[in-house]
Amino acid sequence: GVTEEQVHLIVGQALKRYSEDRVGMVDYALESAGASVINTRCSETYETRTALLSLFGIPLWYHSQSPRVILQPDVNPGNCWAFRGSQGFAVIRLSSIIHPTAVTLEHIPKALSPQGTIPSAPKDFAVYGLKEEGEEEGLLLGQFTYNHDGDPIQTFYLEGDGVSTYQLVELRVLSNWGHPEYTCIYRFRVHGELAH
Amino acid sequence: GVTEEQVHLIVGQALKRYSEDRVGMVDYALESAGASVINTRCSETYETRTALLSLFGIPLWYHSQSPRVILQPDVNPGNCWAFRGSQGFAVIRLSSIIHPTAVTLEHIPKALSPQGTIPSAPKDFAVYGLKEEGEEEGLLLGQFTYNHDGDPIQTFYLEGDGVSTYQLVELRVLSNWGHPEYTCIYRFRVHGELAH
Amino acid sequence: GVTEEQVHLIVGQALKRYSEDRVGMVDYALESAGASVINTRCSETYETRTALLSLFGIPLWYHSQSPRVILQPDVNPGNCWAFRGSQGFAVIRLSSIIHPTAVTLEHIPKALSPQGTIPSAPKDFAVYGLKEEGEEEGLLLGQFTYNHDGDPIQTFYLEGDGVSTYQLVELRVLSNWGHPEYTCIYRFRVHGELAH
Ligand SMILES: [K+]
Ligand SMILES: [K+]
Ligand SMILES: [K+]
Repeated sequence: GVTEEQVHLIVGQALKRYSEDRVGMVDYALESAGASVINTRCSETYETRTALLSLFGIPLWYHSQSPRVILQPDVNPGNCWAFRGSQGFAVIRLSSIIHPTAVTLEHIPKALSPQGTIPSAPKDFAVYGLKEEGEEEGLLLGQFTYNHDGDPIQTFYLEGDGVSTYQLVELRVLSNWGHPEYTCIYRFRVHGELAH
Repeated sequence: GVTEEQVHLIVGQALKRYSEDRVGMVDYALESAGASVINTRCSETYETRTALLSLFGIPLWYHSQSPRVILQPDVNPGNCWAFRGSQGFAVIRLSSIIHPTAVTLEHIPKALSPQGTIPSAPKDFAVYGLKEEGEEEGLLLGQFTYNHDGDPIQTFYLEGDGVSTYQLVELRVLSNWGHPEYTCIYRFRVHGELAH
Repeated sequence: GVTEEQVHLIVGQALKRYSEDRVGMVDYALESAGASVINTRCSETYETRTALLSLFGIPLWYHSQSPRVILQPDVNPGNCWAFRGSQGFAVIRLSSIIHPTAVTLEHIPKALSPQGTIPSAPKDFAVYGLKEEGEEEGLLLGQFTYNHDGDPIQTFYLEGDGVSTYQLVELRVLSNWGHPEYTCIYRFRVHGELAH
């Protein structure tokens, strides 16, 4: 059996990690640290909500309709970028030039979805490193599948050459978990090592 | 005694629930998901703070003075809707049509209140289902008492008929815990089953 | 060994404290509760980020460039007040008149810093109580050192006379942990007892 001290230690370590942005890794795609979405190519932002903006006569700018929200930590239901169909693109300028080593994709937990399922979550996606914004293709850093039955926060490790450095990373969502009209991205993070 | 593995399991489950909006239930009154306060009847919003708006010459819109804040998750001290006296009303248009099954009321913990008590917290309140906005009465779904000595987040189960569906729900606060001037609502959630 | 019930109790208590603004003490310097930064004396705010403001043509006001952010709970990387050099000042009007008993200084954890170190964190700092805004000196309430190897949230206890009350408190940062260009303050809290 474990002692009371050991329990306190385990709890303390779990809360420490929880407070370190949940995953304990630097997010080079975080907007508040200087990253930005610079291009969404042909993706068509989908308006999932009726206009609630004028209820009290307050001109309010809804975060949830801009691709920028995928770089923001608030993942309360609705705070996502929704694009039409199941394929969408986002070119992100990171806050630093890095050797990318992993990405993290996040959706709301099923418990917080009205249907109890998350059909609008991304399924297959690919990550590319770009040398300049105009570049069409870029280098494929990895292709993965977000598991709709797994933890809401999922990290995927890239097979980089450990040499190339990038400040531009592209997320290409290739399919979703069944929603016929749109796909929602709550948060996308990029991890790595600072280039020297 | 429990094993170290079991402790990690218990901690993991507790943090999972914590990250699911604390209660693990869909909130159909969440603003970011599409809900809104459409009417506050005769409630008089109370200005609890002096105008700090012009300190740096920045025109800033304070959330805390609108009833909208009761549908927003940020419950840091001050992020509440304060109304004059101890009776206030809010008609909420939910993000979906549902069979309402429960509501959750939230206030700040006593530890974060300067007085060490929460006299401005709501005490007795009732919840009504409305068929249309102009409706005066609606159907009483339940009357409850928020316990100022209890957990800051309290869920109350409605005695619905399990048949009626609503998109409009009204919160009627009937008394508070002793504050002579105003009552503060930090967050109000509505739970239920999607109507089909 | 401990029982499963005891583990649940320990976990529950830890999460309760976590949800009480992490430290379980009233923060009289919290902006949402009515506090404000009224003066930064000769401190020169440092622009650490390139202007990302016009990317989508949205006029956006970045919190991170105002001293106000030190009174706001969001401590995601970048949500700090950066001032040039290693010495900076902030005179804060608290939300109430209090006997100050402690202050809390917060920085991001090393795990979330690209370099793995936090050279821009404050090191030596002093706290003063002021009777009026124009006052040059004030009363020294304590001088402390923020430990860059310690917990991101550190509380320091003041040696007040237990009699004097203040609504104005000044934070004077005297040095940092090595950054040659700027120092970042993520959050500063003031604790105490309400004056009667
Ligand atoms: K988000
Ligand atoms: K709120
Ligand atoms: K902050």
